[in-house]
Amino acid sequence: MDNKNNQWRQDFPILDQKVNDENLVYLDNAATTQKPQTVIDDLVNFYQNDNANVHRGVHTLAERSTEQFETAREKIQKFINAEHSDEIIYTKGTTDALNIIARSYGAENIVAGDEIVISYLEHHSNLIPWQQLAIQKHAVLKYIELDDDGFVDLADAKKKITDKTKIVSIAHVSNVLGVINPVKEIAQIAHSHGAVMVVDGAQSVPHMPVDVQDLDCDFLAFSGHKMLGPTGIGILYGKEKLLNAMPPVDFGGEMINFVHLYETSWNDLPWKFEAGTPNIAGAIVLGYAVDYLSKIGMQNIFDYENELVDYVLPKLLNIEGLTVYGPQDPAKHTSVISFNLDGLHPHDLATGLDMEGVAVRAGHHCAQPLMTYLGISATARASFYFYNTKEDADILVNSIVATKEFFKNGTV
Amino acid sequence: MDNKNNQWRQDFPILDQKVNDENLVYLDNAATTQKPQTVIDDLVNFYQNDNANVHRGVHTLAERSTEQFETAREKIQKFINAEHSDEIIYTKGTTDALNIIARSYGAENIVAGDEIVISYLEHHSNLIPWQQLAIQKHAVLKYIELDDDGFVDLADAKKKITDKTKIVSIAHVSNVLGVINPVKEIAQIAHSHGAVMVVDGAQSVPHMPVDVQDLDCDFLAFSGHKMLGPTGIGILYGKEKLLNAMPPVDFGGEMINFVHLYETSWNDLPWKFEAGTPNIAGAIVLGYAVDYLSKIGMQNIFDYENELVDYVLPKLLNIEGLTVYGPQDPAKHTSVISFNLDGLHPHDLATGLDMEGVAVRAGHHCAQPLMTYLGISATARASFYFYNTKEDADILVNSIVATKEFFKNGTV
Repeated sequence: MDNKNNQWRQDFPILDQKVNDENLVYLDNAATTQKPQTVIDDLVNFYQNDNANVHRGVHTLAERSTEQFETAREKIQKFINAEHSDEIIYTKGTTDALNIIARSYGAENIVAGDEIVISYLEHHSNLIPWQQLAIQKHAVLKYIELDDDGFVDLADAKKKITDKTKIVSIAHVSNVLGVINPVKEIAQIAHSHGAVMVVDGAQSVPHMPVDVQDLDCDFLAFSGHKMLGPTGIGILYGKEKLLNAMPPVDFGGEMINFVHLYETSWNDLPWKFEAGTPNIAGAIVLGYAVDYLSKIGMQNIFDYENELVDYVLPKLLNIEGLTVYGPQDPAKHTSVISFNLDGLHPHDLATGLDMEGVAVRAGHHCAQPLMTYLGISATARASFYFYNTKEDADILVNSIVATKEFFKNGTV
Repeated sequence: MDNKNNQWRQDFPILDQKVNDENLVYLDNAATTQKPQTVIDDLVNFYQNDNANVHRGVHTLAERSTEQFETAREKIQKFINAEHSDEIIYTKGTTDALNIIARSYGAENIVAGDEIVISYLEHHSNLIPWQQLAIQKHAVLKYIELDDDGFVDLADAKKKITDKTKIVSIAHVSNVLGVINPVKEIAQIAHSHGAVMVVDGAQSVPHMPVDVQDLDCDFLAFSGHKMLGPTGIGILYGKEKLLNAMPPVDFGGEMINFVHLYETSWNDLPWKFEAGTPNIAGAIVLGYAVDYLSKIGMQNIFDYENELVDYVLPKLLNIEGLTVYGPQDPAKHTSVISFNLDGLHPHDLATGLDMEGVAVRAGHHCAQPLMTYLGISATARASFYFYNTKEDADILVNSIVATKEFFKNGTV
């Protein structure tokens, strides 16, 4: 499929530009995604027509703003099939959401000697909060091994998760290896030991159907900006019963019932966790982004991206000297593809690709322990979304080959 | 001055609309401000041309995005005259910023028996974080009294702040009483006892020149959305020496140097406090909002609003049965004006005003302890910005009188 045949691509104005005199090929979607014009228009419409602070006003703009803000919450609830809309907490992003879980549920439930279980492939945002909680509480942090393809290993999960385990937190999709981890199965293991299951959905929710009731996870965190929404907004999903029992972590307006000089009582869910003026426009527009995604259909997006991987992965594996991390079988690999070229630092590779108009990321991808585990310091990473095409994939492959030729006589 | 003579008003498209068949008169600026078209355009331009994640990319869009993100920080630094750009931390808003201070500086420096001093007029966001810190640390929370005009009383500040005081935190401008508190003088008292001075600048930074070096405050918190910027972005200013010594509070990407399995080292300022993907568009566009404000000049905005208060306050005081809280002398009152009408609940008053197209807020304004202190449960509040006019003021006054007449025979 070339660019003209992708029916969604024309909705994204940013893609229609030259970078270094070449057509932009944006393959940094695991870092952040682009926004369709309709979503940008929704943002403009809000600020031009309805902008007001939420909840605390009786005037017309405040009512309009509040209604849209809470409607967006219901859209997001349906999108991940949460049972109740008050299980949807607006946060700054995935990182914020995971920190809230660690700081609230973690601080309340972890005592010395307890175990927290994560894996070697976690993003720093799903690693450092647990590491620091473990240090603070004198708890034990355990890492589940990865199998040969880079999946979180179920057999090892069964060994690492014990009756001492209180929290298990795993990335649904790796932001480096492109694997979909068996979080549903890991949740069952966690629950069988009385532990709660946290899922880092930053790389899954934007790319596939995610059903929190089917996964039976206790918490799910994800970011708006990785799924067509604005920056500065993300979601913490939590089971109502758990969230109700958890203390708030940020204090201020809206999260209270009664404030006395020396004591305060807390508001109900979801507002207990939403202190201060929230990212109102961000939340509302994330709701519109969800509308856009839902119209395409998450299964369609997943299938389309798989088709791209089927096409591009064999071509990448065919480049001499190029190593792809994670599964080599396209059927097992999502559209996040990390790789290195022999003898070339990934930053040089990414810079070379940028000269060809191809935007990929290079570095440790906020996963230093995974880099250590893999015995490398960094990778280049191409990550696709539904507005990318086989034409983009061809340009990526050709540009890698061209960059390899360019650097043949040593790096710059 | 009527609306046509206000040279800035035409820049705000939202103001040009009917509400309940009347021209909108937006007087809820203390809750959130409207956005000029140029700022909305800047937001659109970013998403249409440059959107990418910051810091971690070498490709062209990521470089453009990062450059704008850090340029915005420098604009904000200059705007409040901070000495270093790394003293400017991007947060979710004022509430987030104040919570970070309490959670990081507070947790690190407060021990049992220490004193934290605030005042009776604080917003919940500058009250509950200290109240909860005091509870947690077995510290003593003390409240400075207000004088007859509603200012934080300097004489009482001198009594309440002692050698046991570690933190003093005061609103620069009250979001209810419209007073400008003597925070510079209070900072001197705090410093003379070795305490740090926190200033809640949510209601001052958008309306007057604020110079952190002149105030000699140790921390300043404010919100972008109250000064023409987008929702979901705010600033924590802190003196470099203090911020350097403080532990991070949120853990994730970008705030680290090295992440090992069981320990992590932190990044330099300002990133140590900016875990995860920040509100990139929000920060960049706040920078453009600051450009817009700077072009007008903060002293001009302050003078213009004072002129509005000179005009409207006497007219309000002239309405029989209407009580204005805070100073009755226009020279002492900023453009945040809270009031109640005898026999009418402020929500009914605000609803009545909304029928006339006038948007004001009603409630406790996230200041329940102040309401108790004043012996009331709620007020209506009209809050002006530089795009408001004497014409708006006249409509407010006439609408209050009309609402009073309407409700004469009892509330609805």
